[in-house]
Amino acid sequence: MFAKEVYIRRREELKNSVQSGVVLLLGNGEASINYEGNDYAFRQDSSFLYYVGLDTPNLAYILDIDNNKEFLIGDELTLDDIIWMGNLPSLKERADAVGIETVLPFSDLSKFVPDTRKFHYLKPYRYRNKLIISELLSKKPDDAAQNFSVELTKAIVKMRLIKSDEELKEMADAGQTGYAMHIVAMKMCQPNVSEREIAGMIEGLAISEGTRVSFPTILSMNGQTLHNHDHSGILEPGRLMICDAGAENVNYYASDFTRTTAVGGQYSPKQKDIYNIVLKTLNDSIDLAKPGTTYKSVHRNAYRIIFEGLRDLGLTKGDTEEALAAGASALFMPHGLGHALGLDVHDMENLGETFVGYDDEIQRDTLFGYKSLRFGKRLEPGHVLTVEPGIYFIPQLIAKWEQEKINTDFINFNEVKKYLDFGGIRLEDDITITADGNRFVYEKRLPVTIEDVEKVVR
Amino acid sequence: MFAKEVYIRRREELKNSVQSGVVLLLGNGEASINYEGNDYAFRQDSSFLYYVGLDTPNLAYILDIDNNKEFLIGDELTLDDIIWMGNLPSLKERADAVGIETVLPFSDLSKFVPDTRKFHYLKPYRYRNKLIISELLSKKPDDAAQNFSVELTKAIVKMRLIKSDEELKEMADAGQTGYAMHIVAMKMCQPNVSEREIAGMIEGLAISEGTRVSFPTILSMNGQTLHNHDHSGILEPGRLMICDAGAENVNYYASDFTRTTAVGGQYSPKQKDIYNIVLKTLNDSIDLAKPGTTYKSVHRNAYRIIFEGLRDLGLTKGDTEEALAAGASALFMPHGLGHALGLDVHDMENLGETFVGYDDEIQRDTLFGYKSLRFGKRLEPGHVLTVEPGIYFIPQLIAKWEQEKINTDFINFNEVKKYLDFGGIRLEDDITITADGNRFVYEKRLPVTIEDVEKVVR
Repeated sequence: MFAKEVYIRRREELKNSVQSGVVLLLGNGEASINYEGNDYAFRQDSSFLYYVGLDTPNLAYILDIDNNKEFLIGDELTLDDIIWMGNLPSLKERADAVGIETVLPFSDLSKFVPDTRKFHYLKPYRYRNKLIISELLSKKPDDAAQNFSVELTKAIVKMRLIKSDEELKEMADAGQTGYAMHIVAMKMCQPNVSEREIAGMIEGLAISEGTRVSFPTILSMNGQTLHNHDHSGILEPGRLMICDAGAENVNYYASDFTRTTAVGGQYSPKQKDIYNIVLKTLNDSIDLAKPGTTYKSVHRNAYRIIFEGLRDLGLTKGDTEEALAAGASALFMPHGLGHALGLDVHDMENLGETFVGYDDEIQRDTLFGYKSLRFGKRLEPGHVLTVEPGIYFIPQLIAKWEQEKINTDFINFNEVKKYLDFGGIRLEDDITITADGNRFVYEKRLPVTIEDVEKVVR
Repeated sequence: MFAKEVYIRRREELKNSVQSGVVLLLGNGEASINYEGNDYAFRQDSSFLYYVGLDTPNLAYILDIDNNKEFLIGDELTLDDIIWMGNLPSLKERADAVGIETVLPFSDLSKFVPDTRKFHYLKPYRYRNKLIISELLSKKPDDAAQNFSVELTKAIVKMRLIKSDEELKEMADAGQTGYAMHIVAMKMCQPNVSEREIAGMIEGLAISEGTRVSFPTILSMNGQTLHNHDHSGILEPGRLMICDAGAENVNYYASDFTRTTAVGGQYSPKQKDIYNIVLKTLNDSIDLAKPGTTYKSVHRNAYRIIFEGLRDLGLTKGDTEEALAAGASALFMPHGLGHALGLDVHDMENLGETFVGYDDEIQRDTLFGYKSLRFGKRLEPGHVLTVEPGIYFIPQLIAKWEQEKINTDFINFNEVKKYLDFGGIRLEDDITITADGNRFVYEKRLPVTIEDVEKVVR
């Protein structure tokens, strides 16, 4: 938690930005695993954390802009609670700590739904909050959810997108734990070790040093399967292990790194060739990211490096500009170059990816690959982004393109098919945009050259 | 997952037990952490696992008893899914593996809500499932939830309460990981180590060897705070660390153990006195648990040992039977002696604690302490239970009793108040009832005598 003044200032800025109406920020409740009372580790809503700072369940915040009043809504502990849970600070004390004067019971929440003035709330992503808003408004859950305030959403995105120095310190802290997690994973990347064992160890480390992993760890020999949360493999010599993992620190800021390690620490010549194209793409992309440049153009340039690198290996062919216009590189990297990072690993994704990553000036592409870029905006100091290029050989996608004759002018399918058992390589770092360029969010960059990674593993 | 025949046999037995109507078993969906797509580790509903065996999200099972037909309800993977998630088995193949012939899309679910026949479903504990049932029945969420089938609930409790040999093997496996977790915790129980670090390490171990911790780990110097999930303490010499933790194995069966370790491994004489009363209570309770005995009576006997043990130390006074009738021991152990254990750590608690733990013969007490016993039934072979006595000095509860003059005939408050900084001790093992007594669920009992625990720590 930051100092009281931080939250007061943020709420003041939000009030000035939204201008009128009643704002509701609905905190999260507990989420049951297999029965009520056996709950997943509690996670507060990130916008609630940003403006109110309190990380206990079942709270709401009301800002009546027109009457310049604000309220923390939640129920005080009972004597029974204190007997079972110990001497915790009262809700009144918690409210004081973040500069809110008035606390009201949760049953009062409905009194704040205005008759005629605008009621600003965010699109709910948890069923509990969907239900609460549905009941507050006497509307069907889906209808109530769709009626969220675009004005409030945009105001919050604008503020949360620019990280303050105090936030960047928290992110460096999350980065430090992420660093430790990846070093452990690299060292454990030996033949006959199970993916599950490594994933468990690094997840434990995230809990030991912070609160949890910032997202479900991807750790697999099958790097080509992008949405892969299976950890049932046993590491085999000759294969690559992709590890995409990060930590959430004690103040809920996220880190997000990817490294791809040769099992046992020795990359084959074929693996080195692809690895070095991805590494060049990563480094060149980082070099390009500076105020005034759009991330959309950095993504496009990443596609250029991948296309030309693979052309040198004989996997692609033809004119670079034509291939870029046709989206040929998306066969190898069907995802975006990166995303905003902050209190959420895909920062503010609950508010709507397009609100976060695009605006009136920079709009989302529709072409396969390009359209998956989560963040395309013109860069500004204080933006924090992941840079995560990859090259994958996805058998089902290659088969589909060959069969449907997609981009046959630019892809040498016969050569590509020699890589069907390759898997995939991704490398990812986190940067923050500065006045004249960018810097890593953390002090020490994870080993990333083949030589340095090999040294860690062996 | 077990062999196909296991699930077929269970569903057959369920059908015979419920006799008529349409049964819905609704599987779980993903649960978002901070946005849709960033989800907590998926956990299938335990009754769905027990009868259908499939651990992927967004499924339902329909059993039309009157027409002797059954259906797996869920959506097949699309080509896009396969590109992103790899070559997973189709839903049809998954259904085959558990002996269900027909698969229908999720949108067909509403067709199975009968007009006049009885619609049997379980009380939902997740907001998502509450919403689905509410929409299926066109009723308000709370009304729909309250309308669950008592018949189905009782039929499931009856079956799941008796563990088969194949289930007991899974529970032994979960016990083995729990064992490893507690040994790590004991070894790390040294001055200046943070609770958070230890909790993270053992949670990581649970993920490495199984799926996760079976419940949020309690690991704290403040053992007297029963609902304590705070891990912010730094271990201090002279204090006790309570660790109540268990694992869920790869097939989702739970273990649940508690040990209380002296920081640095050396118990003080005062700590030894209390520890040995708790240990005697644990061992005597285990000795008593056999078919025909009610667990309610074992709980009462635990209160007897605690009362008499503390009387020897001068903390309690007066006649044992009168003190037991008045519930005097509940000051020191306000919780129940144990609960059923299985696919859930509080087995089937989502179905209603009273359905699981009580019946027409054995009913729940109303007196403080006694009323908190989750499981009071007459014991039968195949029951699996935790045995977890404790002695705590809860300042707020002691103050309340003294102030309200509760049980002043049996409590020496002046002596008790010398223990206000003691904390608490709990010891917990898991047993299964056999034909003539009971045995531990696992092969090897965790070190439990002071001598043996001291050996592990130092």
